Amino acid sequence: MDIYKAICLDLDGTVYRGSEAIPEAIDFISSLQKNGIEPYFVTNNSSMTADQFSLKLSRMGIHTKNDRIMTSAIASANYCKEHFDGASVMMIGEQGLKDALTMEGFELTATQPDVVVVGIDRGITYKKLSEASLAIREGAHFIATNGDKAFPTERGLVPGNGSFIKLLETTTDKTAIYIGKPEPHMLHFIQQQGYRKEEMIMIGDNYDTDIQAGIRFGIDTIHVEGGVTNAKTVLKQLQQPTYLFENLNDWNKKGPQ
Amino acid sequence: MDIYKAICLDLDGTVYRGSEAIPEAIDFISSLQKNGIEPYFVTNNSSMTADQFSLKLSRMGIHTKNDRIMTSAIASANYCKEHFDGASVMMIGEQGLKDALTMEGFELTATQPDVVVVGIDRGITYKKLSEASLAIREGAHFIATNGDKAFPTERGLVPGNGSFIKLLETTTDKTAIYIGKPEPHMLHFIQQQGYRKEEMIMIGDNYDTDIQAGIRFGIDTIHVEGGVTNAKTVLKQLQQPTYLFENLNDWNKKGPQ
Repeated sequence: MDIYKAICLDLDGTVYRGSEAIPEAIDFISSLQKNGIEPYFVTNNSSMTADQFSLKLSRMGIHTKNDRIMTSAIASANYCKEHFDGASVMMIGEQGLKDALTMEGFELTATQPDVVVVGIDRGITYKKLSEASLAIREGAHFIATNGDKAFPTERGLVPGNGSFIKLLETTTDKTAIYIGKPEPHMLHFIQQQGYRKEEMIMIGDNYDTDIQAGIRFGIDTIHVEGGVTNAKTVLKQLQQPTYLFENLNDWNKKGPQ
Repeated sequence: MDIYKAICLDLDGTVYRGSEAIPEAIDFISSLQKNGIEPYFVTNNSSMTADQFSLKLSRMGIHTKNDRIMTSAIASANYCKEHFDGASVMMIGEQGLKDALTMEGFELTATQPDVVVVGIDRGITYKKLSEASLAIREGAHFIATNGDKAFPTERGLVPGNGSFIKLLETTTDKTAIYIGKPEPHMLHFIQQQGYRKEEMIMIGDNYDTDIQAGIRFGIDTIHVEGGVTNAKTVLKQLQQPTYLFENLNDWNKKGPQ
């Protein structure tokens, strides 16, 4: 267990399901913390702020600090800071993205931006989509917080940010730069806090996002069952996760000793 | 000139440009009408009603009847009548589509529809897109009035219905049935008014929609310059229009005698 210093956990499907905590994950996190390891939480959800995630986790008995929470919104803001520092930014998104961009010092504009950053926005309008299209066609950099096509609700799958990105790509004939998993950007920003890749591991329930992000970044991965991808489907993949767990209780049984 | 009984003209780019009439087209239509031929107007625009198009044309000096106007909204309603008569319909769209569907006797519903019909809707909301996604995934037939990816405004290209269809196709993993040009449905519904294909001709400025619709339906076509596709680009296409005109003055010079 001592090998890994940066233990990166996906949230929905791995630590909780909607508003319900996953007990084995809560136990696992608590035991890590007792051993002095503060894990990272890595989510494609760009709508909530780090504060909101902290609060949600604290209600499940997990106490963490904001610097351990890496959302696709925060990573998008970091990416813009790294590549387009001082640029004017047009945003489509919710509070999580707005906070992340303003915290990195970006001024948000409604016209002639250098960069357009698009995250899920359930207050979307035709005007917002038009303004973004015009700006992207005029040459603004085009950043997508994440490419998730749909996300689950009690009633079924509803449009995710990836579907809105597809709309804008279709209108503009330009391709977005994607930030969230399976792209490795979020893990890159965690590494920048001072880790070697051998010290990092990515844990998640979704092969196509969580496990692929780890593989592409070149770190160890753990797939856990009970979420998006089942073990049978994972076993058919060309690139396998380092470990295949039923749940996080397996850490002590099957995990790195 | 006597060969053709159903002369089908695209509107934007062929008869007018935005709010400006194209003089050669106005003269051509007027001369047809003097010879007792009432042309058809065939447009992918689903937002306006037949009445609104009649009014717009009358301001340019073209007087026509509503049964000569074939929009992608009217064709979508006709298609639903032909294939799903009596079905419950969920609609995303503007007045043109709403009128067309109610005129065919369809009751519009917000929940559990048999059919989802999607046209451009500049009052789009996340809720509308979610409801449509849920219904399509649950098995509702999925109809797109047209697949135009973008449309021109004074400021540039803004999202067209085809971009919203791409969004819904991405979310639902289903493919829409497209009604507008280049699909031949609108020409099919005109033919049903009592023509043989040899008596029909499609005239337009856009190779990919107007000319392709005519070719796919198997009727003669005329490409006119000054709109979306220029002659040089048309000449590179594998399938050529029957006639290549600079403008509709060429009807008497180059056209069928």
